[in-house]
Parts: sequence; structure tokens; C-alpha cells
Amino acid sequence: MINVRNPADGFRSLRARIDALGGPGHGDRGEDGAPLTVGEWALLIDDIVAHPEANTEPLWNVAAPEEDDREYDAIFVGGGAAGRFGSAFLKARGGRQLTIDAWPFLGGSCPHQACVPHHLFSECARELDLARHMQGRLWYPPFDDKRASILEIVELFRAGRGYPHAIMNWQSKEQLDMEFILNARATIIDAHTVEVAGQRFTARNLVLCTGARTIFPEIPGIGLRGVFDFASLIEDLDYEPNRCVIIGGSKVALEYGSFFQATGCQVTILTRSPLMRTASLHHIDDGMRDYVIAMMRDRGIEIVEGAEPIEVLGNGKVSGVTYRDADGQVRQIDTDFVFVGTGERPNLDLYAPLGLDIDERGFVVADSHMRTSVPGVYATGDLLGPPMEMFKARKTGVGAARNIMGEDYEFDFTQYPDFLHTTYEVTWCGLSEAEARERHPNVIKIQMPPDDADPETFALPAAEGSMIYAFTRPILSGWLKLVIDADSRKILGAHHVGFGAKDAFQYIDYLIRRPEGFTIDQMAELNELFLNPEHFIQLSRLRAGQASLVNL
Amino acid sequence: MINVRNPADGFRSLRARIDALGGPGHGDRGEDGAPLTVGEWALLIDDIVAHPEANTEPLWNVAAPEEDDREYDAIFVGGGAAGRFGSAFLKARGGRQLTIDAWPFLGGSCPHQACVPHHLFSECARELDLARHMQGRLWYPPFDDKRASILEIVELFRAGRGYPHAIMNWQSKEQLDMEFILNARATIIDAHTVEVAGQRFTARNLVLCTGARTIFPEIPGIGLRGVFDFASLIEDLDYEPNRCVIIGGSKVALEYGSFFQATGCQVTILTRSPLMRTASLHHIDDGMRDYVIAMMRDRGIEIVEGAEPIEVLGNGKVSGVTYRDADGQVRQIDTDFVFVGTGERPNLDLYAPLGLDIDERGFVVADSHMRTSVPGVYATGDLLGPPMEMFKARKTGVGAARNIMGEDYEFDFTQYPDFLHTTYEVTWCGLSEAEARERHPNVIKIQMPPDDADPETFALPAAEGSMIYAFTRPILSGWLKLVIDADSRKILGAHHVGFGAKDAFQYIDYLIRRPEGFTIDQMAELNELFLNPEHFIQLSRLRAGQASLVNL
Repeated sequence: MINVRNPADGFRSLRARIDALGGPGHGDRGEDGAPLTVGEWALLIDDIVAHPEANTEPLWNVAAPEEDDREYDAIFVGGGAAGRFGSAFLKARGGRQLTIDAWPFLGGSCPHQACVPHHLFSECARELDLARHMQGRLWYPPFDDKRASILEIVELFRAGRGYPHAIMNWQSKEQLDMEFILNARATIIDAHTVEVAGQRFTARNLVLCTGARTIFPEIPGIGLRGVFDFASLIEDLDYEPNRCVIIGGSKVALEYGSFFQATGCQVTILTRSPLMRTASLHHIDDGMRDYVIAMMRDRGIEIVEGAEPIEVLGNGKVSGVTYRDADGQVRQIDTDFVFVGTGERPNLDLYAPLGLDIDERGFVVADSHMRTSVPGVYATGDLLGPPMEMFKARKTGVGAARNIMGEDYEFDFTQYPDFLHTTYEVTWCGLSEAEARERHPNVIKIQMPPDDADPETFALPAAEGSMIYAFTRPILSGWLKLVIDADSRKILGAHHVGFGAKDAFQYIDYLIRRPEGFTIDQMAELNELFLNPEHFIQLSRLRAGQASLVNL
Repeated sequence: MINVRNPADGFRSLRARIDALGGPGHGDRGEDGAPLTVGEWALLIDDIVAHPEANTEPLWNVAAPEEDDREYDAIFVGGGAAGRFGSAFLKARGGRQLTIDAWPFLGGSCPHQACVPHHLFSECARELDLARHMQGRLWYPPFDDKRASILEIVELFRAGRGYPHAIMNWQSKEQLDMEFILNARATIIDAHTVEVAGQRFTARNLVLCTGARTIFPEIPGIGLRGVFDFASLIEDLDYEPNRCVIIGGSKVALEYGSFFQATGCQVTILTRSPLMRTASLHHIDDGMRDYVIAMMRDRGIEIVEGAEPIEVLGNGKVSGVTYRDADGQVRQIDTDFVFVGTGERPNLDLYAPLGLDIDERGFVVADSHMRTSVPGVYATGDLLGPPMEMFKARKTGVGAARNIMGEDYEFDFTQYPDFLHTTYEVTWCGLSEAEARERHPNVIKIQMPPDDADPETFALPAAEGSMIYAFTRPILSGWLKLVIDADSRKILGAHHVGFGAKDAFQYIDYLIRRPEGFTIDQMAELNELFLNPEHFIQLSRLRAGQASLVNL
């Protein structure tokens, strides 16, 4: 056993491994006996991920009895967003935790296969979109003949993902003082006992944090080489796709579809429900949806709504997809690349010994305290169903920790700000205009471009990231809407397509959800940082003088 | 006289002019008798700006006596940020206003020469920085031999600025119902009377909104061709600069210097005070400054602090600059391009008939109600001195309007969020860490990268816009800090270098300045949109469990 926490033997062993691997670059080299640096962790993690068969030993960071002999307050099964944040909070509250993960790093799928690559790919999509739009102008060279490579971008991510992993391990150990066992599979014995690497650990509570995975549709050919989801794209892609068919209409479908299209790989999205009209995306404003989909089509993406996939064709490797269209016609698309974006479900086999209540969709049943049907067992994150978002994973993990440590903590995750990427950042919170009008008799909106303006000449919104579009083809520069109850003057919803506004929506969402709300008059009193991407403050100010508010 | 408001004759005359100009593109064409569209306004404004000598007629949008025969509550002299927002607010409050501007558009210098081109140039700087950094990797071609053209980018702005101008005119007339006279110089007769285009207008109040302009240092050669400020750069640049010397260390100096350098034009900044240590930039955190300046130097910008410019050399056209360095040595730089970024002052000649009190720096003296020393005369925006920012211009304009309309409205603009661009967005609000430590005995910080991490391997912050950097050279991906009073648990300051966080700082500033403040515990309860550019919410959550807070 290598205990990276107790330097006696562990560090020397780990350093010997790192030395054998060539040592980290950039001069990031720890002293003998000192904690591993981020660079050293990265090297170690990369080696284990690349050669799992040669690296079966767990990475232990567990206090020796002379350091801490208390009972564990909780064992977190899974060290992703929920498990790591829950562990950090429980530890900060003075409790004792143990976190177990099958991967050799903490942080879970986000930095390995999900949010982090998705953000890298979406940034590439944005840059490629601009490069293609601007080709032959300013410093931008011609783009037509030179298609970007999906494979190269995936390889860039693969080569670099060790560093974010390493940060999580370094931070969790050096700054958050967590106990963990990594690169080791947990076996659940009962509601208080977990076996890992041949040892049994007991705790007052278990917190289940193992997330979800893509559910592939059960159609013939779905197992062929050339069919990917967001996870296998990272792990398995080894050729350059020429044509892409996306099965499903989830956020992932929009995001990855926009990325593939931006590289020059023609994309067709086959979706049962209309895009951005699925149950898991709430409060989508019609105007925002119209703009987002028009702009995806403007980039050449083919969107087939009402499509029912029938079969993935191919002989060993994908060669096409057949589907039934909305009129019942069977159609075929030849393609060498199928990407599945139909949503995710947890794998609950690991928890069979617990006898948890499971709902009809396959998610773990838990109350607002994150308590499952089994006393002492908490469930978090994607195990609980949608929204499968980071804020929920982390806060349910923290919520379980708070309850375990004696608080009475409830978390309602039914209302939250949301976002997705196309080649834009698309962000929203609160009510859509249509929802607001159902609930309030006197709703006004502030919108850019206004409904009666020609978007091809209306060079707003323009701000961080949309300036070059605004000065070359205004319609590409984005879209925004603020929905206001003219009676109470409270802001009910905010909606934005563009760049640079996503971060603000976290705070706008908080402000408008306060019991006292947030009025157009309060918004108008803020000190804006112009050109602020969503323009809400100054546009509110242009209207706030009115006793009877009207649209802008 | 063309009255664009009363369609009787005015519209037909204007439409005839627009038809003669070839009509707008994109099918944005108004019906005869209908209000001018944004596209039509753009065409008209562009023609007047390009040929002022042939377009001396004012653009009138003034109510006829049968439409409104009330006395004017205020005449706004200048229709820029302060004048336009003040006018809109006064009108919305039910008052009557008249706004006069020498330019043929409302909105002032921001969309013509200042914030809007600055944002376009800063976006180009960001894109060029990425293109150079990534050259030869992924889809990015080699960059060395192919320098971007400053002149072409300026020309792109010049060609497109008519649209933002047109939006201001269209919105002010059609949505805000303002009265205005454009393309006409105002003459102040007394505190209630203004003459414009041969007519006298009287009002209960005057609101002065004419802004400021660059003060060029009084050194020999400063009038040579090849010496520019941000305004003349737009109007007069007609060659491609090869080498740039910047005189001054203001925000403008950093912003334009970073842009010129990014195009491939070697920049030297000659500054008396250390960069980002000038009185007009408050609450600059040392760590943030260090990162910003290190990253400017990383891009090759030469920064000479303690420099005293002596002379601009040249025979008709700039050929060099001499300066005295911090050691008293006289040095010379050969250059074909000098850019002045030493700060701005108002021109108050227009107001001589009023006998206003002026302070020793040359700014108009006004109280917190925006009242000058002359009853009935209000002053706004840059006339009042720093900060010369949009929020202040607009809110002082609105503040004057509110007081004129009977409110008792005070505006304290000494505390505000702030930002500047290099190739990054640099944003801050509240206290720097050093300031916080002077006032509070127990200050902690949350920082990325942490002080003890190697920034070359610490691939955070990473989010919108910094992903490609994070995956190719982590140190380029940004820097952030949250400053917290560990006793009250209140957030005291926030500081960020990167992309996509600027918008949020408007709301963070509001939250932390509330009388009750905003604690790390409240921050930790927000629902983040991960990967959120400033990471404050989740990093706060990792620490919020602690009873005694420590650094992260």
C-alpha cells in the first residue's frame, strides 16, 4: 500500500515512479518528503490512465490511527462533483470522511469526459465559427480547404486532462485535508460498510455519488465501431469523422453537434422532440429558442424533428443511419460517425445490497435532505435524476454532509439558472415570456434586437466576444430579453444568447429569486461595466423612469 | 429645416436623400411616411460624417406647438451617454426635454470613438493573441510572417460605426420619444437659454453633458503627423504603423497598447507612474496587477516606468520619441507612431457665459445632486472628473433629470466595479487584499492559482474563453482572487483576469456593497453555471463549512 499522506514510505515510492516517468516539466518538482506537486500528480495520473493494467495499486491517503482514530462520519462512494464537495464540506465542519473512487483522481467525469472537454470543444466551436465567418478578412486566412480536425482537438484534451485532475488531487489533499482511496473499486457490504482493496471500512453513513452514464437507444447496430457518446468520444476516437449523425436532442446533442459542425463535419441531428422543448430544459423562452435554432441552421446544421431512429448500418464500422421521419417515411443518411445524445441514467448495480427505493425512471428516490429509503444512506447528483448539472451534484453532496453533521438542511433544485453552448453561450433564468404572461396580467419585455428591428442592421447586443460579429454581420452578434412584471416592477426572467453573460446569470438568478425580488428600478441603479454583454442594467435604466412600464 | 418627427415634409426630404445615397442594404427599407429604419438612419449618418461640408443642415426632431406646448424642463447640451440617458429618464418621468448634439447621432463619443472601438480592438487583440499562441497547432496557420493590420481594423470600425449610431437615433426617437436637434452646435446664452441653428430655446434647467477629450502633453513635436489619441486614431489613421510608442499609463494606454502589440506592432509604454498605480484606478490588488503586467510583458510589450517624455521627433511626420528614464538618462526610440494615453479633461469654453465654478484640475464643481454653482444648471459625466466611465456619465445624467423632476436624488460615484482590457478582461470590485488587511485583522483569500502552485501546470482558472490556453499553457488562462473578512465572513473584494467574468462583477459589486453585505456562506449557496469563469461560488463552497476560515 502506498499512503501518499504519510511520507515515511509512500512518497519515496511515488517519487521513484515519477522519476521513472521522466519527472514533470516546467520545473514543478517537489522536494523529497514534500507533498506531491500538481505537476507530479499529473504525471502519475496520466500514467495510470494510460496503463491501467500496470497500475492496479490503489492511491491511499488515509489517516493512520495515531493521526485520527475517530469513526468515519461518512464514506463517500465516488469522488466526483458530489463526493468531493460533500467530503470537503464534512471535513470543514470537523467531521471525518473517506472518499473512494475507481479513477486515480478526484473530480469525477467533469474534468475527465464531461464539462471540461465540452467547454474546450465549445470554445473551439466559437473560434472556428469566427474563423470561418471572417475568412479572407482582416488577418483571417481562407478557411474552406482547411478543415479543423475533431481528432486533433480530442487529442489535445486527452493530452492535457491530467493537469485538472492533478489540481483536484492536490487541492483535496493539501488544502481540503480529505482522506481518500483512489484507483480502487468500492464494494458495498451494507449501509455502514464498504470494502475497498481488500479492506473493510465502516462509517455512520454512506453517501452515494457515482453519477450517471449515457443510455444508448436499443436499436440494431448501436454497438458498432463509430458510435460514440461524450465519454467514449474522449476515450476511443481514433479516426477523423467526415459526416456526423446525432441521435437525440439533449443539451449534449446541441453542444457537440455545434462543435462538430464548426470543424467542418456536416451534422444532422435526429430528434424525437423539437429541440429545446424537452422536459429537462425548463423556462426556455420562445424568442431565445428561435434565435438559437436559426443560428444553428445558419451554420448549416440539419435538424430533423420528429425523427425516430431505426438502425445504425455498417459492417463492423458505421456506414449509415436509418430513421422514420415525422411523416412516417423511412430515410437513410450515409455517415461514418454517430453520436448519441439521448440523456443519461445511473448504473445502480453496485447498490443492490442496500435495497434502495428506485423510481420508475431508474433514479434513486431521496427526500429534500438527500436521504434515501435506507437509514444512514444518502444519494446525490445524477443518481437523483435531472437536472444533471454541477450545481446540483455539488450541493446535494454538501447537503448530505450538512445533514450528517447535524444540520437540518434541505435543498430544492427545481429552480436554477441554466445554460448550453452552440457556437454561442446560451443562458437563462427565471420565467420565459410566455410563462410570465400566464401568471401575470401585465408583462413587458426589454429585448435586443427588438421585434420590429431588422436584425441584419441592428448591431446590438455587442460586447465581449460579439464585437467582430456586430461589425461584420450584426445578426450574428446575439440576442437578449428581460421579462418584467409591470405591476410589481419585478424582473421575472432573463434570457441571453451571445458571450460573456453566463457568469452574471448566477447572480441575477439569486437576485430575482429573493423573496423581495429584484425590480427594474433596482437593476437600473447598478453601476454597469459597459459594454456589458447583457445590457440589462442600462436598458432597464432607459425604462425605469416610467410609471407605467412599456416594452423596449 | 428637416423635421424627421413630423412626416409632412421631413420624411420625404430625408427619404429622397437616402434614395440618392442608394438606399440601405439588407432590405431594411421603410415605407414612405413611416419612421426611418435603423438601416436608413445608418446611411444618413454615414453620409453626414463622411461629407460634413455638404451636410450642414441640422436634423430636427422637435415637437410642434400643437403636439406639445409645454416649457422645456431641461435642455441637455450634448447627447452622449449622460445627455441621452438623462433625457430618456426625464421624458419617461413625464417631463419635456430637448437634447442637442453637434454630431448627427445620439450616443456621443462611446460608439463613435471610445468604448465601442475600444471593445472591437480589444476583441481583436484577444483573437490575435490566441492566433499567435496557437500558430501551427490545431487549425491555426503560422502567424509569424502575416501581421494583422491596425489600419484595416480601424477601417472595419469606421465602416460599421454607422449602425450603432443609427440604433441610438432610432431608439431615442421611436422607443424613448425624445426631442432632439442633431448635427448642430449649441451656443449657451444664459442659464435658461440656448441658441441652436439660429433659434433660441428656453428651459427651466440646463444639463451640461459634453464630456472630455485627451489632453496632449506640452512637449515639442506633439502636433506632428503620426501622433494620435483614441479619437484621432479613428478619424485620421491612414497608414500602417510599424512601431508604437505610448505616452502615458492610463487605462487607454494599457488597452490600446495591448491591441497594437497583438497585431504585431512592437509597443513601448512610457509612463511616469507605475502601471495600474495611478490615482484614477482604485482598489487594484497587487496580485492582480502583477499577473496583468507579467502577461503584458509575456506578450512582448516594453514597459518603461518613471519615464518623462521630452520630445516627439520628426520632420512633418513622427520619426522618434526622446524621454528621460528613471535614472535621469535621456533615451530615444525610433518610431513612426505615437499614441497618447495621459488622461482627459473637458473643454469648458462653451460654458464661459455661465460663470461656473471650476476646480483646480479643470473640472466643473458640482454637488452630489449634480448641481453646479449656477442655479438651474447641472453638470454630468466627464465634466465632473474621474471616473470617466459610462455608468457615471449615464447615472449623473439620470440623476440630474431626477432632481429636475422633483426628486431628491444623490449619487455617490466614489465606489464602483471597474475593468480594463489587455488581451484579457481584467475586472475588480470592492477592496484589494492589502486594503482589506489594513481595515480588518482577520482577512483570508481564495485564489487561483494559489501562491504556492506552479502556474505553468495549474490549469485553473479555466472557463469560457480560457480553455484553449488552459490546455496548451496553463499560466495564460487567467487569475482570480476573492478577499474575505474571516470574522464577519463577508466578501470584501473580488478580482479577476480572464474572460467572461466582467458582466458578473456588476452584480457582485452590488451584493457586497449592500449594508448587510454578502458572506462566503451566501455565495456558497448560489447555483453555479459551471465552468463559471470566476469560480467564486464553488471555491467559496469548499471553504464555507469552516468555522474558522483559512485561505484556499
